[in-house]
Amino acid sequence: MSDERQNLYDNDEFFAGYASARENPVAMNYTVEQPGIRALLPEIEGTHAIDLGCGAGDFARWLVDEGAASVLGVDLSENMLAMAGTQPRPQIEYRRAFVEELELAAARFDLIVSSLMFHYIEDLEPVITKIRLWLRTGGALVFSIEHPITTAILGKRTGWLKDDTGKRIGWEVTDYSIEGERVSRWIVDGVVKYHRTLATTLNMLVESGFRIDRISEAYATVEGEVLDPGLLVERMRPPFLFVQAIAD
Amino acid sequence: MSDERQNLYDNDEFFAGYASARENPVAMNYTVEQPGIRALLPEIEGTHAIDLGCGAGDFARWLVDEGAASVLGVDLSENMLAMAGTQPRPQIEYRRAFVEELELAAARFDLIVSSLMFHYIEDLEPVITKIRLWLRTGGALVFSIEHPITTAILGKRTGWLKDDTGKRIGWEVTDYSIEGERVSRWIVDGVVKYHRTLATTLNMLVESGFRIDRISEAYATVEGEVLDPGLLVERMRPPFLFVQAIAD
Repeated sequence: MSDERQNLYDNDEFFAGYASARENPVAMNYTVEQPGIRALLPEIEGTHAIDLGCGAGDFARWLVDEGAASVLGVDLSENMLAMAGTQPRPQIEYRRAFVEELELAAARFDLIVSSLMFHYIEDLEPVITKIRLWLRTGGALVFSIEHPITTAILGKRTGWLKDDTGKRIGWEVTDYSIEGERVSRWIVDGVVKYHRTLATTLNMLVESGFRIDRISEAYATVEGEVLDPGLLVERMRPPFLFVQAIAD
Repeated sequence: MSDERQNLYDNDEFFAGYASARENPVAMNYTVEQPGIRALLPEIEGTHAIDLGCGAGDFARWLVDEGAASVLGVDLSENMLAMAGTQPRPQIEYRRAFVEELELAAARFDLIVSSLMFHYIEDLEPVITKIRLWLRTGGALVFSIEHPITTAILGKRTGWLKDDTGKRIGWEVTDYSIEGERVSRWIVDGVVKYHRTLATTLNMLVESGFRIDRISEAYATVEGEVLDPGLLVERMRPPFLFVQAIAD
């Protein structure tokens, strides 16, 4: 396993900050991302699934509760997998790996899910090619990424435009066509993500043998907005892009 | 034909301004939109094609030059169709119609092209459904629209963010999730367009029986940028969205 790849969740400062952020019931994870990705899932009953970037296993356990026959949870963080191990389920196997280095048998899976992980991968195309190989024909890849509108900006910590009172009034897009590394702060400094245009991501799916079946740019749930009206600003520009693609 | 629908190109003030803008060889039409849409076209040789919003017929004539067997050019403007009529071709038939009211035989066409017209249509879904019907299975719809990033903003004439010297430094996105009418100025005041999210447009294609085959967010050609370095700002955010969709 390469030591050069970013492993945020095994950085002590990051992990402490992350664990405390996740305890907040109105975190974007609960109010935007998880409802958004779950709305795109096909029938789960009886499926053999993979969760790429499974973290502490919340989503893997939910898949089992919804009837998945088996779930392979893959993550690179020992910290997160240790948390996952505290709530074992017989249907779930966890594996520590960088997805770039993961090798699995072909055509054995019905569903591959990945929440907010692909934008950490520098060279996504070979990963998408492997995912296509692991899926049976007709199987589904469902993933979320930070929306290309939000990852575009270079050299600033945020794209939020604010009025004189500090209120968020819009989102600034620059550098959209310049793909590649974006260094930002999220809990800690120096978090590295990769910006790809929407066209690059969608064309990569088609070229790798997927049919794009559904796109979503969901913002917070109404319940989330009631709990935290600050989430209303997410309607100004899509925070995430959700894709359901079918192995063709 | 409804008189209530917008018919910009038969407004005298608009038409005079438009005709003069089009004479500019570095107009966005020549440096961004036309190269972008042509890059997505399938084989043209021998095809029976429709150009929806054909204007003065430039694109229809180009399709014939590239080998199209027939082209049906559809536009709502008498002015534009009169211009088209000055350069007739035996392979081209022009028809004056609002595309919302156009009726054609099913499965007779191989290629349907539409440049920068769909964002003028309030209710696009029935139009996409008809286009699917007109195409044979395997036929292609290739279109461009103003990118949803650029049509999002409500109540301002432009999304360009400028520094103190008036230089364009970014693009402001607000109101992205609020779909519907956008009133702007382009040559004349009161031009009405309709903002739809990217998800809405792409899902509408899939639900109408299309497979999304290629997306492009092309900016100006290098030649265009050399002729007019002002076009470099188009790299900051995608001006147009180009889609190739195949009738499934």
